[in-house]
Amino acid sequence: MPKTLSDPQQIVLIQAAAKIIREEGVSSATTRRIASEAGVPLGSVHYHFENKQQLFEAVSDSFGATGKEWVAKHVHPEMGVAAAAGAIARAFSVWAAQTPADQLTEFELGIWALRTKTQFKLPQQSYEEWLNHYRALLQRGRRSDEPLRDIEAVARSLLALVDGFIIQDQFLRETQLPHSSERLIVAFVQGIEAGIFDVKVATEAETLTDGIN
Amino acid sequence: MPKTLSDPQQIVLIQAAAKIIREEGVSSATTRRIASEAGVPLGSVHYHFENKQQLFEAVSDSFGATGKEWVAKHVHPEMGVAAAAGAIARAFSVWAAQTPADQLTEFELGIWALRTKTQFKLPQQSYEEWLNHYRALLQRGRRSDEPLRDIEAVARSLLALVDGFIIQDQFLRETQLPHSSERLIVAFVQGIEAGIFDVKVATEAETLTDGIN
Repeated sequence: MPKTLSDPQQIVLIQAAAKIIREEGVSSATTRRIASEAGVPLGSVHYHFENKQQLFEAVSDSFGATGKEWVAKHVHPEMGVAAAAGAIARAFSVWAAQTPADQLTEFELGIWALRTKTQFKLPQQSYEEWLNHYRALLQRGRRSDEPLRDIEAVARSLLALVDGFIIQDQFLRETQLPHSSERLIVAFVQGIEAGIFDVKVATEAETLTDGIN
Repeated sequence: MPKTLSDPQQIVLIQAAAKIIREEGVSSATTRRIASEAGVPLGSVHYHFENKQQLFEAVSDSFGATGKEWVAKHVHPEMGVAAAAGAIARAFSVWAAQTPADQLTEFELGIWALRTKTQFKLPQQSYEEWLNHYRALLQRGRRSDEPLRDIEAVARSLLALVDGFIIQDQFLRETQLPHSSERLIVAFVQGIEAGIFDVKVATEAETLTDGIN
């Protein structure tokens, strides 16, 4: 994945592709169209990016970058996994509510990629990066005295929860994302505190039995 | 919306369109292609459906129909709103896990419709029908002695919760939907029981004050 895109012309191409996809959809984002929007020769796209997938990955990363940064601001060490999960879900909801065109574009890019067999890694990589980000933030928020929480399950629930309400807002053509998601977030946070997302640590007796069977 | 599609040729056209969209994506489902797949003259599509939107609505309905029926089987009178919500979420998860191509197609159709300004009502209508179905099922499950639950909020959370995990399964190319969603469902059900989704009934004093201000 293109992690360090420092060439100004790469940035221009990413911004041009992002603009076209956001405003007109992924099917309009041909290489020719992107070069024209960026005001560069057609060959420049192929010079700067191995293929369309690499360019679209960079577009996807550029959409997520501000969201990841914004969410991270709300997580503090020792706040506890439950509080961190609540803070992340609420911050993500607020950010997503303010960037509806980018959210639609992310789903569209993902589904387009799943349909285009050669591009199928794009949504997987983008989703994994969000999961990585959330795992790290939840670890940062973890209180040293709290039970062992299943960070993977919490991170996955976080993404699913907010994505589901983003789809709801898009499909119902509403703009009430943080409001709609609030009560499920409360239930989620209380559930973590109640131990629903704890790692089930086997007792010594169970471990011994497992060893025998 | 075409609620009663009894003409055999309509059914054939819906099935042909569904097959093409499911296997190749919505962009391949041209009127010409659908007629050819159905083995009927091109004019037949326009004879049976006002426009492409009406045909695609019927396709969307046909995808949801078995899911709605399956979910309904799991809700019984007097089981309580929390138990009904849990039963619906789990049944929906199991059905969605068994129909991944249809789920992808539903999202794809919805996003395509949002991008195609003239078709924009399609995802809204489809989503509203699911919400209606869930509202009715939750009312059916309601126990006469339980507090007044916010059925609208519960129904919306139900759809968002499962949709979010469908997206997760699709994007990560996994097949563990019922497993991934289980703990958030438990938190959701416990949250309903704990009163998080209750309708806040104003006390008599508050009502009086409201009347004055």
